[in-house]
Amino acid sequence: MNNEIKHWLSKTEEAIQTHLDNGRVSKTIRNASLYSVNAGGKRFRPYLLFSVLKSLNADLSLGVKAAAALEMIHTYSLIHDDLPAMDDDELRRGNPTNHIVFGEAAAILAGDNLLTESFNLLSNDTSLEESTRLKLIRILSECAGQNGMIGGQMLDIEGEVAAVSLEELENIHRFKTGHLISAPVQMACTIVNAEEQTASVLSRFSEKLGIIFQIRDDILDVTGDVEVTGKNTGSDERKEKTTYVSELGLEGARAQLDLMQQEAAELLKSIGNNIDTASLNEVLNRFAIREQ
Amino acid sequence: MNNEIKHWLSKTEEAIQTHLDNGRVSKTIRNASLYSVNAGGKRFRPYLLFSVLKSLNADLSLGVKAAAALEMIHTYSLIHDDLPAMDDDELRRGNPTNHIVFGEAAAILAGDNLLTESFNLLSNDTSLEESTRLKLIRILSECAGQNGMIGGQMLDIEGEVAAVSLEELENIHRFKTGHLISAPVQMACTIVNAEEQTASVLSRFSEKLGIIFQIRDDILDVTGDVEVTGKNTGSDERKEKTTYVSELGLEGARAQLDLMQQEAAELLKSIGNNIDTASLNEVLNRFAIREQ
Repeated sequence: MNNEIKHWLSKTEEAIQTHLDNGRVSKTIRNASLYSVNAGGKRFRPYLLFSVLKSLNADLSLGVKAAAALEMIHTYSLIHDDLPAMDDDELRRGNPTNHIVFGEAAAILAGDNLLTESFNLLSNDTSLEESTRLKLIRILSECAGQNGMIGGQMLDIEGEVAAVSLEELENIHRFKTGHLISAPVQMACTIVNAEEQTASVLSRFSEKLGIIFQIRDDILDVTGDVEVTGKNTGSDERKEKTTYVSELGLEGARAQLDLMQQEAAELLKSIGNNIDTASLNEVLNRFAIREQ
Repeated sequence: MNNEIKHWLSKTEEAIQTHLDNGRVSKTIRNASLYSVNAGGKRFRPYLLFSVLKSLNADLSLGVKAAAALEMIHTYSLIHDDLPAMDDDELRRGNPTNHIVFGEAAAILAGDNLLTESFNLLSNDTSLEESTRLKLIRILSECAGQNGMIGGQMLDIEGEVAAVSLEELENIHRFKTGHLISAPVQMACTIVNAEEQTASVLSRFSEKLGIIFQIRDDILDVTGDVEVTGKNTGSDERKEKTTYVSELGLEGARAQLDLMQQEAAELLKSIGNNIDTASLNEVLNRFAIREQ
């Protein structure tokens, strides 16, 4: 990863830490919130936001609070997803999940806290104009809300009850994970006030990225090493979930991944004259599966 | 209740309904979110917001989206509070709680949804200037977050494990319920851009109101009729919760309620020359306990 982006990822982690350290009413809330933030996430959404900012030749410092808010929303969604009433997972990124460590009540509240405070952080981002902050709040709440992540999460849970088709699966992922991968791209374009055409191609790029992200996750659930993925392998199959692998087979899923990668790379080529796509190509290359 | 305020409460309910009807991804999310919004709440926080706007001689229509966001946050907190891992309540306002009707997973997500969408609604409130919207988002997220409701909720849960003193109890309530009663007052003052001195006295008024609210709740848990309160009587005692009644006795709690009422009324008198306090006195009178 680019060292400049690494620097800003670490600034993002500092911003989250500082914000949550300001929570002085309940130590449990502070500790439970920070536990999951610091449980070894890949910071993919912040990384994507900074990569887009870099491709648009922007001042990366302007993205810190937005990146922090994105990671807080992502973290809250993992905490709630892992709850017994949801996916009932005891292990995440190789560590015990939040409710295993702090109990269910604290885990529910820590998730609520990260969600609430992400909007507080954005509203106080004095490095950005007020109208920009408001746009970021709108994008993030749309991508995380009823017509984004939460809607998709509910479809996913209902899909576990009634087996779904590949088409329905793509629809679920578009909402469940796709929107929160689209959010950093939209937010970066908003911060920079990017040209409409560039923003539109980058938006399509982020949609491809969302699908790539999910296919790779499904493949790694079958082939991955618990040491690498931090998750128990084969959990999708045990839960009889419809995945790209269950529908297309392992080779079919790999072929689909390659196809999506190519399409995403072509989108980048198509705007290569307007922006510096090196950092975005790097994002894309991170998703190549090299385990075989 | 004043007919003008009633009108705007019904507009507030319409605004919530319209916003949640826009959730087109998952019918379950839409239905579960609306179920609890429409489960017969008293709309106290919106009512308080409009009462303050009225006392400040403002256009009440400006408060609709803010009132809707407040009620959505309040409703989400009730859904999550009622969960088995939290208070484990099966009855709320005389109706089965959200997770009893929709299951725990949907109840968790419906709560997350109301929380997320409340900020979306505020960010899109075009009746207000962008800087005002941003201030409202800041107030609401502060009052609902780690140094407000969520922090207090965690203290409350931990207090159930370790019995707390009356002083600690007041502290818990200040965070758990007080801040979300303070929020409508602060938000109304922000919408109107009220004079600092007036806003400061109204803020102290709202703190008293928060305590009054809680003492009354504790008294009604002992003396109330399930038909009136919609809750099973005596649940605090069964859970061995520290309450104003457990600490001061029933008569002591009543005396404390009277004292707080007087102090709140005096605060209103002290600003009576600047604003029309009739609607705020009406708010206060609603809390008189007349069941004996």
